[in-house]
Amino acid sequence: MNKPYLDFLFHPSSLAVVGVSPDTTRPNLALRFLQSLSKSGFKGNIYPIHPAGGEINGFKVYPSLRDVPGNVDYVISAIPARLTPKLLEDSAAKGVKAVHLFTSGYSEIEDVVGKGLEHQVLKIARASGIRIIGPNCMGVYCPETGLTFSADFPGQPMFPSIPGPLGLISQSGGNSMFCIREATGRGVYFSKLVSYGNAADLNESDYLEYMTEDPDTKIIGMYVEGVKDGRRFLNTLKKAADFKPVIIYKAGVTESGARTCASHTSSIAGSAGTWQAFLKQFNAVQVNSMEEIVDVSLAMLKLPVPHGRRTVVIGTGGGAGVIAADDCTQAELSLPLLPSDVRKKLNAIYGTEAGSMFRNPVDAPPMASVESYFEAVKTLADSNAIDIVMMQFSLDIWGMAYRGDIILPFIDVVLKAAKYVTKPMPVVLHNCATPEARQLAAEVQEKFVKAGLAVYPSLGSAARAMHKYLLYEEERKRRGLQGR
Amino acid sequence: MNKPYLDFLFHPSSLAVVGVSPDTTRPNLALRFLQSLSKSGFKGNIYPIHPAGGEINGFKVYPSLRDVPGNVDYVISAIPARLTPKLLEDSAAKGVKAVHLFTSGYSEIEDVVGKGLEHQVLKIARASGIRIIGPNCMGVYCPETGLTFSADFPGQPMFPSIPGPLGLISQSGGNSMFCIREATGRGVYFSKLVSYGNAADLNESDYLEYMTEDPDTKIIGMYVEGVKDGRRFLNTLKKAADFKPVIIYKAGVTESGARTCASHTSSIAGSAGTWQAFLKQFNAVQVNSMEEIVDVSLAMLKLPVPHGRRTVVIGTGGGAGVIAADDCTQAELSLPLLPSDVRKKLNAIYGTEAGSMFRNPVDAPPMASVESYFEAVKTLADSNAIDIVMMQFSLDIWGMAYRGDIILPFIDVVLKAAKYVTKPMPVVLHNCATPEARQLAAEVQEKFVKAGLAVYPSLGSAARAMHKYLLYEEERKRRGLQGR
Repeated sequence: MNKPYLDFLFHPSSLAVVGVSPDTTRPNLALRFLQSLSKSGFKGNIYPIHPAGGEINGFKVYPSLRDVPGNVDYVISAIPARLTPKLLEDSAAKGVKAVHLFTSGYSEIEDVVGKGLEHQVLKIARASGIRIIGPNCMGVYCPETGLTFSADFPGQPMFPSIPGPLGLISQSGGNSMFCIREATGRGVYFSKLVSYGNAADLNESDYLEYMTEDPDTKIIGMYVEGVKDGRRFLNTLKKAADFKPVIIYKAGVTESGARTCASHTSSIAGSAGTWQAFLKQFNAVQVNSMEEIVDVSLAMLKLPVPHGRRTVVIGTGGGAGVIAADDCTQAELSLPLLPSDVRKKLNAIYGTEAGSMFRNPVDAPPMASVESYFEAVKTLADSNAIDIVMMQFSLDIWGMAYRGDIILPFIDVVLKAAKYVTKPMPVVLHNCATPEARQLAAEVQEKFVKAGLAVYPSLGSAARAMHKYLLYEEERKRRGLQGR
Repeated sequence: MNKPYLDFLFHPSSLAVVGVSPDTTRPNLALRFLQSLSKSGFKGNIYPIHPAGGEINGFKVYPSLRDVPGNVDYVISAIPARLTPKLLEDSAAKGVKAVHLFTSGYSEIEDVVGKGLEHQVLKIARASGIRIIGPNCMGVYCPETGLTFSADFPGQPMFPSIPGPLGLISQSGGNSMFCIREATGRGVYFSKLVSYGNAADLNESDYLEYMTEDPDTKIIGMYVEGVKDGRRFLNTLKKAADFKPVIIYKAGVTESGARTCASHTSSIAGSAGTWQAFLKQFNAVQVNSMEEIVDVSLAMLKLPVPHGRRTVVIGTGGGAGVIAADDCTQAELSLPLLPSDVRKKLNAIYGTEAGSMFRNPVDAPPMASVESYFEAVKTLADSNAIDIVMMQFSLDIWGMAYRGDIILPFIDVVLKAAKYVTKPMPVVLHNCATPEARQLAAEVQEKFVKAGLAVYPSLGSAARAMHKYLLYEEERKRRGLQGR
């Protein structure tokens, strides 16, 4: 199979980091790039560049790009904008294929100088066939090749990072970093990620085309402030969304948000209504936060397609049940009253009299045996009246006094239930307030994630993710686009 | 000053815990009550009751309430519902003032037997002047007297718990426990709290009247599923809300949520629209989660009244800024473009060229010195164009590599800035994804809370809290009800 165009961005065989000062006493972002690449196991040659020369972290520093003895595919620029036209000329002379301009100070600033510099840099790139990532962005993260922009992305083992099915295209570097941490903590790993800033040359449509063709990318996530070429983006998105799920967080939906897009990445935000309409038209999944990109991806990756919206919630606490019912209903799932035969079985399992705790949500008695919890989940999962079995846990409502005798055995029984249940079974692990409970919640989450469960931080986030998953699949079916 | 009626619920001089089985090999909720009371330093006499007698945890167990040698003010019942009419008779004989029925299985269950039992118990109580808390609830938490229903509520020192200004009236025990943990972790402590379940005797209006008159309660929070006596509640709420802030989370706003209210506490939920209208009419603050009760209380307790909605956000990251701008605007705060003199000052402080990072939100350069951050905050706080200075921190966007050389010095400078800034300055500490970052965030939060700062888990939660605080105060002013 032919590699999709732009594959060279993610698989450079050698790269230069420009601006790595040998003065390590001052904060030095170029040095962070160098350290990240070296720690994350980037396999090609790495050449630090700085006029002062010398040596750093075991690497020889070259005074200029032209002084590098070997071939250079890819350049990371962390020098001031005014010096970048010269760098582009050097790159052209050296036969560089791609320049990532971490550098900012171009069209996103108020000064005309910035716009002029962006124009100048672009002109040299166009003339020499160099493609530009950015400017004003964090660039590429590709776990497979070890190309990265931060050394401490989590993962087991931490370096090299683990590749996965999510491709992320993000106009913001910080938001993409947040998304990486949130996703990997919940067992969703990345094929490729690009933080692309001002998009002076390569833009959202180029990256979207690439991710659509990239066989390693199964789901595409996007954080967008604005698009460079609206017509092209519409065509590209239509093709992409027919082929793979595309989950889009369009930020800058308010007036001051839109103004901030302009100052952040010189983007024209576009009206919220227009975006909503065309995302719907193409069956792209619209979300409202970076977390929600992870929430929906998680549902699509870890859970089977639900047959419908009929959800049962099993948890502990009547008040939590009331909130759960509101949350599910507001997310357009339905919470049917459980059929009386199911309720009778639950009463028999728990040895309770005809009670109201099993109407739906199911308020599992906290002091009952873990075996009865398992039997209850089985009963719910077996019922024809139910499409989705949602579990919720609030570890610190139990209290840490219950850690050993209740909480830990419960966790094991959830893992056992997960093996039995074939319907989608999202697990909600509520945020905890106390440090001890947070620590325990982190351990529990790790266990759940390792077992392949889809873990959500709140009932609302799980319910919204299931709703959007359902909407997406229903619409595909309606369009005759079954299977992915 | 006269003690308000119902003060005896919170200050019993002696109490009995009924149902404490000497068989400690089985989960035993009555025993948990006993342990909680003894650990939290309850000052009065505690008498465990069980037909088996014997001794437990150093306490002599009495076979029946009538066998207790001394006076008993207050009874906690953790025995099956069918045994409670007898317990009420014993209580009447013993001169008990209040019975807390932790016991469930009354009007909230489907069976007519439950409704009959509730009626029977109530009849005995009415005839003997006993007041009932519940049934089907966790009861009273009063840090001052050590009356409590869970042993491991946090606080420094943990036992006895620390009293504070928030009074909470909650129909759900679990939700009240969540709220206690969330609030105390953010430096908000409780005067009194009551989880009141079915409200067969004492109901929402009784507790609300008490909290209104209680001098220790400065702000009243409520979690309500439904009310027993609508007309009385309207009158009580009107009086209360004129006198103190009343923050109400009305749950069960959807159809299945309302059904769950009925099965949880036999409540009739009422329409969401009606609730919204009358809460607005009385200037009660309507919120949509337990967390938000804490969010709004925190603003009212720790921050001065803002002069207006003009907010500046200072944080790190352009993408975070875009989201912050959307969040603030959606919460009806305004994010004005900073005046050019302020931006000039910021440029001078950071030694940057005329840039776009300082339009608002202010994207503070992450590698700049902490002194410049302090100067920047000062400049923003001094500006006449700004009413609220909002700080946001995403510790794990920085990455833990930056812990020592950037994050910790930043924390100190925030504390320094807090001493300088007289305008409201909410601090947003975003949730972190990695275990190390969570750990660090917990440490940072503790430092901030100790220094009296109002810490929020997200920009949205801080913005909504400020908006509701403003609405409340503006409406009070409009009504000529200034000062509290």
